[in-house]
Amino acid sequence: MRILLVGAGGVGSAAVAIAARRSFFETMIVADYDLGRAERAVAGHGDRFVAAKVDASSADAVAALCREHRITHVLNAVDPRFVMPIFDGAFAAGADYLDMAMSLSHPHPSRPYAETGVKLGDDQFAVADRWEAAGRLALCGIGIEPGLSDVFARYAADELFDEIDEIGVRDGANLTVDGYAFAPSFSIWTTIEECLNPPVIWEAGRGWYTTEPFSEPEVFDFPEGIGPVECVNVEHEEVLLIPRWVKAKRVTFKYGLGDEFIEVLKALHKVGLDSTAPVSVRGVEVSPRDVVAASLPDPATLGDRMRGKTCAGTWVTGTGKDGRPREVYLYHVVDNEWSMREYGHQAVVWQTAVNPVVALELLATGAWSGTGVIGPEALPPRPYLDLLTGYGSPWGMQER
Amino acid sequence: MRILLVGAGGVGSAAVAIAARRSFFETMIVADYDLGRAERAVAGHGDRFVAAKVDASSADAVAALCREHRITHVLNAVDPRFVMPIFDGAFAAGADYLDMAMSLSHPHPSRPYAETGVKLGDDQFAVADRWEAAGRLALCGIGIEPGLSDVFARYAADELFDEIDEIGVRDGANLTVDGYAFAPSFSIWTTIEECLNPPVIWEAGRGWYTTEPFSEPEVFDFPEGIGPVECVNVEHEEVLLIPRWVKAKRVTFKYGLGDEFIEVLKALHKVGLDSTAPVSVRGVEVSPRDVVAASLPDPATLGDRMRGKTCAGTWVTGTGKDGRPREVYLYHVVDNEWSMREYGHQAVVWQTAVNPVVALELLATGAWSGTGVIGPEALPPRPYLDLLTGYGSPWGMQER
Repeated sequence: MRILLVGAGGVGSAAVAIAARRSFFETMIVADYDLGRAERAVAGHGDRFVAAKVDASSADAVAALCREHRITHVLNAVDPRFVMPIFDGAFAAGADYLDMAMSLSHPHPSRPYAETGVKLGDDQFAVADRWEAAGRLALCGIGIEPGLSDVFARYAADELFDEIDEIGVRDGANLTVDGYAFAPSFSIWTTIEECLNPPVIWEAGRGWYTTEPFSEPEVFDFPEGIGPVECVNVEHEEVLLIPRWVKAKRVTFKYGLGDEFIEVLKALHKVGLDSTAPVSVRGVEVSPRDVVAASLPDPATLGDRMRGKTCAGTWVTGTGKDGRPREVYLYHVVDNEWSMREYGHQAVVWQTAVNPVVALELLATGAWSGTGVIGPEALPPRPYLDLLTGYGSPWGMQER
Repeated sequence: MRILLVGAGGVGSAAVAIAARRSFFETMIVADYDLGRAERAVAGHGDRFVAAKVDASSADAVAALCREHRITHVLNAVDPRFVMPIFDGAFAAGADYLDMAMSLSHPHPSRPYAETGVKLGDDQFAVADRWEAAGRLALCGIGIEPGLSDVFARYAADELFDEIDEIGVRDGANLTVDGYAFAPSFSIWTTIEECLNPPVIWEAGRGWYTTEPFSEPEVFDFPEGIGPVECVNVEHEEVLLIPRWVKAKRVTFKYGLGDEFIEVLKALHKVGLDSTAPVSVRGVEVSPRDVVAASLPDPATLGDRMRGKTCAGTWVTGTGKDGRPREVYLYHVVDNEWSMREYGHQAVVWQTAVNPVVALELLATGAWSGTGVIGPEALPPRPYLDLLTGYGSPWGMQER
């Protein structure tokens, strides 16, 4: 297996550190628009890793890099604005493709908070036939969420339930950052994008529909000492992926943003500071959302000051194999103290990055295989969960 | 009386429209950094009004303009960053001076939320002896708040109470702006400045001290249909002025910002968007607070879309002239519909602007006179309140 990793940011750099301890692949080309960043990501991890420069907005550039290095698998670790050129570039070069976020949505033109418009991943599913016909695999949404959360959904359907009422992905953390009153541990640009887009919900008989941002708040009690966190509906790939392969009456995604973060996002939206359209300020043009990002510390640099745990998981209700009502939460927790000590990467990016490395190893060994454009829930969950535990990062299950 | 009005913004323009109906002065020079704005402010109000250009940051420029036009009184209607050059320029030219906000504060270097540092107006009071010796008058804080609120405090002490427990200035409104989810009716730059500075409180025996921003929230019930609004401590001149001339056990200022506005200000502060220090955004340097202002509509342009009333007033508790406990709220309400119809200026700026015009008329007739650096509560309240009613804008009193 010869891998092209596109993007040497927080998640890409953590993926390098994780892959460096595994022997399943021959080489990994680590490409970034900023060559220096790619070089820093590969430094000290041995000569299987090679830094390169790439413009991820160009499918041709991605394809050329694939051909140059005889790439078999492309792993996309840049922000979702670049999904389509990387996806198309991999296909053009005859490589398989993995990503952790799917092509972007566009709201319904007249009823954005009731009906879907262009959905997350629609642009990728639109060409699924071509991937299928070419015998190529695009394994989409294989980070932590989407990713492991989808594997949990399939595992619940296969091994735990006869009938599922609701599959609700629930994400929460108790991370704090010393020395800052307010310091998100992930990209504020992306968080604004996902939280202010209309959240999507799936229901049997109704299909996909949308709501107002921050709808249906609930307090979810997270395991391993994290405790209760207020969660709200957020647009996320799982809701688009899970119903295609797993039978359930309802699929939702709620993000444990917490009261404080929700208030900040609402306030930014009220003032118009979430906008990406430039405003004129004393003779210069700037995008307010870029100013928000510039006013906050870079999350990738905060690992040393972070404390606490982050949890991703899938809450499932329905009828168990014994015919009785059952409710479980399948989850994965990473303690920042552990990920910093073991890998030098903060918990949120490490937890995302471990999943595509596990998936690549399953594809290398043949435990996973397929063609077309698919999500993680299209493949057998058990080998995945076992190998994740083999990476030293076990998952858990609570009966509720 | 020959007046120099410095600043042809919202308040300055409204002051021109109000003064145009009065005969007590000979001429009013309306000066702004933007000559076109000054010309628009005087247009249609007759030849007593003359537009001029001035750099309000230069005491020499202010003094030169005073000498050129043989100015007897300077009215400062620009933002408080320019108090000192205008104040000094008026003195240098031998003119009397009026303003609606005092010289800026600087927080205590080590205990900002417990002790005062440089207080509002300190820079002006520091030279009070020179004004006194020269026989010149600086009448400071003669807008609506500070201004009429201080006159109310003196009126309560003179005519309503034997002993005062607390004088609490309380400001609230029910203004809405059609077509905007969020549109402050006053400068967001100034609101951030006053709301995020440490609020100041005065107590007999303790003197001035400070608290955390937004401290001591209370719901105050405003008259004339405005109703209950959540108010919090805010740094304001009244707390510095009233105890110098009026005996009370406690003096406070609370601003009826409302829950929503407080949440927005807190969020801006958390993210660092209240900062005036430039940040670097894709190669350009901008002040986040300027970006906030640029993302919101200009409040001076919102009059046609505004609805509702704004209330300023002074709540006083203590022992009445009959020896029994008494509690009153002395107030002034302006309905935006009325101020737009009568003057073409929105309620908040009109309500501020009427007060210095009333004060100038009292100085012109000799009903008010004085020397040194003083606040409105240093002068007899009754002629002021009567003349305000004569301007068609009566005040009210509630027994509580």
